[in-house]
Amino acid sequence: MSPTDLNPTGKNPEACLIIIGNEILSGRTQDINLSYLASELNKIGVTLAEARVIPDTEDTIIKTVNECRAKYDYVFTTGGIGPTHDDITSECIAKAFGVEYELNAEAHALLVAHYKEGELNEARLRMARMGKGAELVENPISKAPGYRLGNVYVMAGVPVIMQGMFQSMKHLLHGGTPVQSRTIGSEIPEGRIAEGLGQVQARYPDVDVGSYPFFRGGTGGTSLVLRSTNIENLEAATEAVRQIIRDMGSTPFEGEIGKAKKAAK
Amino acid sequence: MSPTDLNPTGKNPEACLIIIGNEILSGRTQDINLSYLASELNKIGVTLAEARVIPDTEDTIIKTVNECRAKYDYVFTTGGIGPTHDDITSECIAKAFGVEYELNAEAHALLVAHYKEGELNEARLRMARMGKGAELVENPISKAPGYRLGNVYVMAGVPVIMQGMFQSMKHLLHGGTPVQSRTIGSEIPEGRIAEGLGQVQARYPDVDVGSYPFFRGGTGGTSLVLRSTNIENLEAATEAVRQIIRDMGSTPFEGEIGKAKKAAK
Repeated sequence: MSPTDLNPTGKNPEACLIIIGNEILSGRTQDINLSYLASELNKIGVTLAEARVIPDTEDTIIKTVNECRAKYDYVFTTGGIGPTHDDITSECIAKAFGVEYELNAEAHALLVAHYKEGELNEARLRMARMGKGAELVENPISKAPGYRLGNVYVMAGVPVIMQGMFQSMKHLLHGGTPVQSRTIGSEIPEGRIAEGLGQVQARYPDVDVGSYPFFRGGTGGTSLVLRSTNIENLEAATEAVRQIIRDMGSTPFEGEIGKAKKAAK
Repeated sequence: MSPTDLNPTGKNPEACLIIIGNEILSGRTQDINLSYLASELNKIGVTLAEARVIPDTEDTIIKTVNECRAKYDYVFTTGGIGPTHDDITSECIAKAFGVEYELNAEAHALLVAHYKEGELNEARLRMARMGKGAELVENPISKAPGYRLGNVYVMAGVPVIMQGMFQSMKHLLHGGTPVQSRTIGSEIPEGRIAEGLGQVQARYPDVDVGSYPFFRGGTGGTSLVLRSTNIENLEAATEAVRQIIRDMGSTPFEGEIGKAKKAAK
């Protein structure tokens, strides 16, 4: 089955990521799950349409989950499913769905198998408690599972575990057309190339033409990033951008200029 | 004037960050503005209560800005105030406030002074267009200013510029009591220390006790992060956490274990 068979309307499904954790909002922890999830979803043709970062607060978690699961095809959550007092995500998600918060027998069995005799205490048993009807998602790192409830996919916040869980669950997602991107580096300042870019965007409305200035060691320029599910138009728009740069007497670079320089060191 | 004079109710003002940009949601760019803003707001006693990441889409920007400015004391936006076709933040914010989107005379003068003769083209003039009534915020890096409109503070997305703008604007904010934090590292797994931590949290409700497992090179442990505006209780709760670790036959480390090890290399 090709990805387009899953997506007869031509519009990719939309997802929202809810990042749950005081540690992100306090600046203690730098989130890197958003960019990982975004890149992975691109590959399977799911659009990450929004992300929200919220604290470990019951009312906020319940309200945000209910708002987002009604609005988007898929909701992913990260954080708050560990063994400590501030890990309240699963209880809140059960409340959001109005289902019983219970010991999941399958998750319980996984923890019993994983921990040595006497180590599976009350705190760790929290990691087997979740809303009734949850479908488990394997955690290849530390065993305590993620899960799906309705269109909500619940994952850990620790990046290596989150990534393992996503890889275990991605076959459950019905994607659309993968999004491809092309990046052209230019030493032309954003303000000079802007007019030409606007014309390319107007000519290829199904290509997202983004422009990102960079400043590095007294010099600078602009990275042009083009993204689309329509590869023919993506290539044509990218070539039009290269031509703008040439017409301005400069040289288009393939990829990010800064990264290319770094790689050459 | 001490910070508490600004905050007679004892509750710190709350802020929301709106990160605007397709490049974040596509995974192309790793946001680092959230953690910077969070850390800076801690210092002046403003709580970052939520963050949203949204695309460069007019309806979404207008709706999100209006929802968040009604809900929070302060709203900060990053991204979308450059010279290109996808820089639509200012126009959307003017629409959100229902005010005229106009050439700001003061911003115009800054750009006229900055650019050489003939360089201030139509695209760059976009950076001087904003909602009527905007109060400018200095951009010490590339001159095109940020601004305040009502309780909404509009900043660039490029981190070095965003940081410069925040430093230029922070005197405009009325903060509360600064939030302090203490970090204790432990080699005890999260699931074993969880019960004791829960007791500390229950005993000191005005201290936020967070627990973050780490896994590194086959070993692991837990970082315990305590945060509060009440320094006396913060110190007492931190000592209680150290005592739990000692009572379990282990050694509490000051700071993050991983970072301490890294520094010692």
